[in-house]
Amino acid sequence: MAVYTEVDDEELEAFVASYDIGTLVAAKGIAEGVENSNYLLQTTKGLWILTLYEKRVAKADLPFFMGLMEHCAARGIACPLPIHDRDGRVIRELAKRPAVIVSFLNGMSPRRVAVEHCEPLGAALAKLHLAVADFTMTRRNALSVDGWYKLVDDARPRADEVRKGLGEEIARELDLLAGQWPKELPTGVIHADLFPNNVFFLGDTLSGLIDFYFACNDFLAYDVAICLNAWCFEPDLSFNATKGMRLVAGYQRVRNLGEAEMAALPLLARGAAFRFLLTRLYDWLHTPKGALVKPLDPIEYLRKLRFHRSVTSAAAYGL
Amino acid sequence: MAVYTEVDDEELEAFVASYDIGTLVAAKGIAEGVENSNYLLQTTKGLWILTLYEKRVAKADLPFFMGLMEHCAARGIACPLPIHDRDGRVIRELAKRPAVIVSFLNGMSPRRVAVEHCEPLGAALAKLHLAVADFTMTRRNALSVDGWYKLVDDARPRADEVRKGLGEEIARELDLLAGQWPKELPTGVIHADLFPNNVFFLGDTLSGLIDFYFACNDFLAYDVAICLNAWCFEPDLSFNATKGMRLVAGYQRVRNLGEAEMAALPLLARGAAFRFLLTRLYDWLHTPKGALVKPLDPIEYLRKLRFHRSVTSAAAYGL
Repeated sequence: MAVYTEVDDEELEAFVASYDIGTLVAAKGIAEGVENSNYLLQTTKGLWILTLYEKRVAKADLPFFMGLMEHCAARGIACPLPIHDRDGRVIRELAKRPAVIVSFLNGMSPRRVAVEHCEPLGAALAKLHLAVADFTMTRRNALSVDGWYKLVDDARPRADEVRKGLGEEIARELDLLAGQWPKELPTGVIHADLFPNNVFFLGDTLSGLIDFYFACNDFLAYDVAICLNAWCFEPDLSFNATKGMRLVAGYQRVRNLGEAEMAALPLLARGAAFRFLLTRLYDWLHTPKGALVKPLDPIEYLRKLRFHRSVTSAAAYGL
Repeated sequence: MAVYTEVDDEELEAFVASYDIGTLVAAKGIAEGVENSNYLLQTTKGLWILTLYEKRVAKADLPFFMGLMEHCAARGIACPLPIHDRDGRVIRELAKRPAVIVSFLNGMSPRRVAVEHCEPLGAALAKLHLAVADFTMTRRNALSVDGWYKLVDDARPRADEVRKGLGEEIARELDLLAGQWPKELPTGVIHADLFPNNVFFLGDTLSGLIDFYFACNDFLAYDVAICLNAWCFEPDLSFNATKGMRLVAGYQRVRNLGEAEMAALPLLARGAAFRFLLTRLYDWLHTPKGALVKPLDPIEYLRKLRFHRSVTSAAAYGL
């Protein structure tokens, strides 16, 4: 469920008129993106998405995100293209918030992941990794090992409210992951949040990748590990090895995962599960009761983490 | 803010395929309609609105609402046209709810009412009243005098939680309105909820009327009285007589308000304010704390009611 900043009509019409995208004929607040307010704009030239950035996206990061999307779209990645206004600006202000108009992408996010989605997903991820090879801006991953220390410190005193023993378990997990975390894998810009709700399909064809607001520089294989967590577990949290295999096969078809990357996958997948466990735990412990947005269940990622902990080689993922 | 019923993609694609409206290319949940779940559908043939009816709209009333919209659209009223599926059906089922696809209307609801909106609004209301003259289905207004008794009974014991003396004030108001309510004015099907969020404009041109889910048979002039309440008060709750004058002038340009209707307007406007005061009071007293949808302030309508009470003739509305 999205947060909505209401935009005054006349202001919106004037805003749209400062772009070369036709005349506004309709605007609907859409239920997409937990972090920002999104409007679907219909103009005489087509459909567009207007995003107003609420607090959770740092204004200082916007040039990186916009530059990244523009770079990728120019290289044929099906992602939103930020639109320049008549003065060449991409990042504007509307209703006292940073505001951007991007192109509209056809397609729908799968609400249930099917085996057929995983191969194209893997291939699209690899294409993204190749496309960003010559992107020159960088952004640190604030949610990698360094960031985990802060999240564990914050969550530990109250983690047992969620599940008995969880405080102790996350402290031990952090020690182990920090000690073993890889240092020498190929790096680049990763999406870092490529969950099914951020991927559009038309039938079985992948038609778009959206929501680049966690993108950062990190190990490319870590992006694969995030997708293994986000796409390959069934609703009962069993791991579907066929989906894992298809995802990695799709990736490999476009960009080869080296031996070191493949060997690191179980640990990276464990780290990825840990990262989502920690941020969900944070949201769970800091969301006031009765809040508009219900936090996601952290235990889902504790169970995924435990699965990865039991894995000794990438073979367990069907690879 | 809307309630959302999530619809499975494959189910949605199959549903759309049973209509002759093209192939689905995108679907977005939209923040429109407090009472139902609405999706904006993009197909290869254009834009459409899919509505899933949640509990608050009685299934038995749907044939009336759909018949009314179809009747009006056929007579050139800019309202959503219910689409028939390949088997001729309008009211279908999706995600275990009654579901309807209607045509998409261009335009935006004014978030701030300007004087320029009021004349076209009045004219559109009068056109609607003429268009329904030969519509044969009927629906009782459950929110007229009879319904007020039940609402007052319900609210009275707790009304003073909202404002001291309110319980006594609504009981006295009901007595007076029930005693003086007109019996002999021209009747027909009225929209009964034509607030700014249910009217679309493209610039100053009215482009659509939506949300017919309170439509019913009642005095035609009562619809004008509802609009006086909904369109002609400023944010500080002062009455803008210029807006009132324009609204009625727009109406009269299309359908003449008789002497008796004009004379009844102050009382009808008072009754309309009372009706919205009572339903808002009901929602206020029955919405759990921390609920997703924040109830609207009943006091706004208490203040409007008190204004109408001070009015002795339609001249006070600028007429």
